[in-house]
Amino acid sequence: MTDLLALGRGILAAQPFSQLLGTEMTEYSERAVELRLAISDKVRQQHGFVHGGVLAYLADNALTFAGGAAMGGGVLTSDIKLNYIRPAVGELLIARAAALAAGRTQGVVRCEVFAVNEGVEKLCVAAQGTVAKAGSIPVEIRTQSDAGAAA
Amino acid sequence: MTDLLALGRGILAAQPFSQLLGTEMTEYSERAVELRLAISDKVRQQHGFVHGGVLAYLADNALTFAGGAAMGGGVLTSDIKLNYIRPAVGELLIARAAALAAGRTQGVVRCEVFAVNEGVEKLCVAAQGTVAKAGSIPVEIRTQSDAGAAA
Amino acid sequence: MTDLLALGRGILAAQPFSQLLGTEMTEYSERAVELRLAISDKVRQQHGFVHGGVLAYLADNALTFAGGAAMGGGVLTSDIKLNYIRPAVGELLIARAAALAAGRTQGVVRCEVFAVNEGVEKLCVAAQGTVAKAGSIPVEIRTQSDAGAAA
Amino acid sequence: MTDLLALGRGILAAQPFSQLLGTEMTEYSERAVELRLAISDKVRQQHGFVHGGVLAYLADNALTFAGGAAMGGGVLTSDIKLNYIRPAVGELLIARAAALAAGRTQGVVRCEVFAVNEGVEKLCVAAQGTVAKAGSIPVEIRTQSDAGAAA
Repeated sequence: MTDLLALGRGILAAQPFSQLLGTEMTEYSERAVELRLAISDKVRQQHGFVHGGVLAYLADNALTFAGGAAMGGGVLTSDIKLNYIRPAVGELLIARAAALAAGRTQGVVRCEVFAVNEGVEKLCVAAQGTVAKAGSIPVEIRTQSDAGAAA
Repeated sequence: MTDLLALGRGILAAQPFSQLLGTEMTEYSERAVELRLAISDKVRQQHGFVHGGVLAYLADNALTFAGGAAMGGGVLTSDIKLNYIRPAVGELLIARAAALAAGRTQGVVRCEVFAVNEGVEKLCVAAQGTVAKAGSIPVEIRTQSDAGAAA
Repeated sequence: MTDLLALGRGILAAQPFSQLLGTEMTEYSERAVELRLAISDKVRQQHGFVHGGVLAYLADNALTFAGGAAMGGGVLTSDIKLNYIRPAVGELLIARAAALAAGRTQGVVRCEVFAVNEGVEKLCVAAQGTVAKAGSIPVEIRTQSDAGAAA
Repeated sequence: MTDLLALGRGILAAQPFSQLLGTEMTEYSERAVELRLAISDKVRQQHGFVHGGVLAYLADNALTFAGGAAMGGGVLTSDIKLNYIRPAVGELLIARAAALAAGRTQGVVRCEVFAVNEGVEKLCVAAQGTVAKAGSIPVEIRTQSDAGAAA
């Protein structure tokens, strides 16, 4: 097991929400990330498909890990865009993400989420997003309404 | 309670994933939707903030409800774009969504997710997405790789 | 005329592409931006509607100006998501943008583009995007393929 | 020259805006599209880089062609998300797009725009978007404000 995979599994283990869903990391290198989540009843919506929010969670998580590896750690997802391609049914979700570009403060990452149904993978979500160094987004951001008389 | 609010709560109650998280619907009209989710340990990531995937879930769900009301029901989220503005901390998440436009097969919806911390709401996510009539996206979509010699 | 409006018009005048299209700035404050573009034959696509790329240009430009005003100048558009709501026909395009949030290195902005047809404004594009301080995106970004043995 | 390439070049020739910019189509099949645009002074912004709106135009156009080929024609771009990766400088822009998925009414497409500088291609924009059958988006879309007392 590479050091990066061990590191990633440690982060995943420290995310209570990922533990609630049972997400596993099966690959983590500077070029690619793979996360897996077994489909159980608790992740479904009203038609029996996996809830779109679970697919978004998995894509978001994979995207952040991929961006972090490409940029040398400590990133947050700044934005993500997801296209839902088909309903996710079957026994397993697999998210694969890889960075397209990485700078000092931002990286651009793409991710695909597949559902495995009776052993056959089908593409369910295509995502693209931006990750940013942790110090560059959070907390100090002021909304216009917080800013009071700023204008 | 309006019929629409009763309908929406029924759909939410039929989503095992929303039940797992404890999502509640506090408003549902043809103009707007409001969902609420109490922040507990299980929805956090490794830094103690709400996991970005939970915010994405809540935005996605609100967006679909808002689009469904504007279009007369039976829609799925086709795509969503989320900007993460600040980490979500506090006791409660509130998602509010409203449709900008609604046609026969597609609608465009915006959503904001706020975290309430000691009673003060702060904007954490701004989202924009497309909903589509259920029959117009799912199942029949073929990926290029499924399509074999299609080209 | 405010100093900010004069500054914005100077930037617009220094953009050869905006001069080619005839874009005008009609409002520029720390809270909002308005750009206008007269519809002429040269901006059309094959069905006689305004080309979607022209709408994207106008939204992108308005978004950057709005982000720049909110963040104190010197920003570039980092990403933008556009929903095309209806074809743009008529005599005039108006883009209005306002920042939702502004931090030290990033801001989140929304924009709408309207077409004015016989005096009536109709919403054609809804956009949402991220701006970033100029120093934080460009040049230093390495793609994976540039990075050689980085992995 | 394939029939599809001839068809695509005919559409491009019928777009006054593409003629204004000098866009050329160098490849068009059911799997991929390539558009090229020579960089001249008229497409620049105030720092001498290609205006982001021109990159958005080229990505939007390539995306629609790719979606149209995958879906059998007659599509419009429904939404597009662009990440700006580095400023575009040099002599030529190349946009390449390919559909990820295609159904009866919607398709999902990815696109990259490269700038060629002294013969070296560098990635400037990564885009992802949705195309929809022409009949399924335009005209019939009513905004909430058009809808009057709809709620």
